[in-house]
Amino acid sequence: MQLDTTKTYLIVGLGLLGGKYAQVLSQKGFTVTGITHSDATLQYALENGYICRGATRDFEELVRQADCLIFGLYPTTLLDWVQEYGALIKPGAFITDVSGVKRGVVEPVQAAVPQAEFIASHPMAGRETSGISHSAEVNFAPANFIITPTDRNTPEGIEWCHALAETLGFARITQLTPAEHDRMIGYVSQLCHAIAVCLMCASDNTELACYTGDSFRDLTRIARINDKMWAELFLWNKDNLISEIDMFTESLLNMREKLVQDDREGLEEMFRLSTARRAAFDKK
Amino acid sequence: MQLDTTKTYLIVGLGLLGGKYAQVLSQKGFTVTGITHSDATLQYALENGYICRGATRDFEELVRQADCLIFGLYPTTLLDWVQEYGALIKPGAFITDVSGVKRGVVEPVQAAVPQAEFIASHPMAGRETSGISHSAEVNFAPANFIITPTDRNTPEGIEWCHALAETLGFARITQLTPAEHDRMIGYVSQLCHAIAVCLMCASDNTELACYTGDSFRDLTRIARINDKMWAELFLWNKDNLISEIDMFTESLLNMREKLVQDDREGLEEMFRLSTARRAAFDKK
Repeated sequence: MQLDTTKTYLIVGLGLLGGKYAQVLSQKGFTVTGITHSDATLQYALENGYICRGATRDFEELVRQADCLIFGLYPTTLLDWVQEYGALIKPGAFITDVSGVKRGVVEPVQAAVPQAEFIASHPMAGRETSGISHSAEVNFAPANFIITPTDRNTPEGIEWCHALAETLGFARITQLTPAEHDRMIGYVSQLCHAIAVCLMCASDNTELACYTGDSFRDLTRIARINDKMWAELFLWNKDNLISEIDMFTESLLNMREKLVQDDREGLEEMFRLSTARRAAFDKK
Repeated sequence: MQLDTTKTYLIVGLGLLGGKYAQVLSQKGFTVTGITHSDATLQYALENGYICRGATRDFEELVRQADCLIFGLYPTTLLDWVQEYGALIKPGAFITDVSGVKRGVVEPVQAAVPQAEFIASHPMAGRETSGISHSAEVNFAPANFIITPTDRNTPEGIEWCHALAETLGFARITQLTPAEHDRMIGYVSQLCHAIAVCLMCASDNTELACYTGDSFRDLTRIARINDKMWAELFLWNKDNLISEIDMFTESLLNMREKLVQDDREGLEEMFRLSTARRAAFDKK
């Protein structure tokens, strides 16, 4: 399926990802409009041709005219927004989002816009940076795009979301349920960020910076983190994340015990297991 | 100071790093000999011109003839070796090693070879690979080289070790006491390896490999680990490593509690702290 380029796309929230969506869709000939709370962001989006029209307030007409909407908002802001403005959305419009958590978002948004179709999705293309001025650096090609449909979605809606992802340049597009998505993201992304942050918070060892090699730098790169967004993501998925933290802590205390006991064979066994499992992650 | 190229260098242990030392020193015109327990390694070292002579046993003459010795052995093997063969070493010879832990090694080796001078050092250029066939891939230029002298070392010995590091291509050469070294390495290297290994051991999530992005891959790259060597390194430095694990676990449990309490502000504070501290590691 090819997306219909005569449709008007409204991007609500012109941050790192919303900005990138706007940029790519404009380049590909779509009519792209935008809503943001920031005058500077609006200015940037207009001047760089990411959108043809936009507003920071009094944006009701932009909402009514849109055939397709993309929410580039934090989850809590997204929920507030659809409560307040969801009724303005055109009947039959296709809507998606970019949220990094799904269970708490998908059903409430679908319930708030019953006249349109919300097909939730997660472009796993986040970076340490944020804001539209970094959008141009985002690369969708190697990233995963996850569609998380529910039984309120139609084959047409899911197909539209798939075609949108292809148009944006994603090569790896898959489907998960919202629950599967949140469990997966708790492990492959949130636990890793929790670990990196805690490693930096554990002690002030910045005087050791001159001795750090690749392993330390790789492990802590993601400790540079957007505080507001990640607090949102962690709290919306806290049950999964707490459970992952508990499994990880148990493993670490297990290793600690082997150290205390001078259990060389036990340590070697852990190293062999981690080596074997990590190899599976290299193949894909 | 320039190293004297008329001297004979004996490399005891032709693994990843010992092999690389042999390769570079031979290229630079030194007479390099080698001892290894493996016939295949000896063959490889001779065929590739890493050494001009070598042996897997009956190597007493090689030891007696060497002006300078480099131990590319695991710590426990190194201690056994000097007990058995240390007396063969030429009086006045300069000796160094490549061990990743220092406190348990330096004084016993110095005591075992009182007729020569052991100046301990640690080339922080390890990789996930091991063995002489991967030596050519090792790059010393960006790595740290740490010399850990004691009061049994002379200015001449330390200067020799410094000149050796320069000859090998290290650009960043520093000195620490053995205790400072082990505390530093417990944090910047061993704790990171412990975390990566435990993340892989915590649960068998290899079915999630297709969803992993850069953050997960970066965090777990070092979970592919040489089991024998790392069990050695962990156990020789277990007091420091356990203390680092405890500080890290406390930080992680602190984050867990903030999740349980829905403490958004507390989470954001941790994220801001980690972001600020990590920035210091980018500058160096």
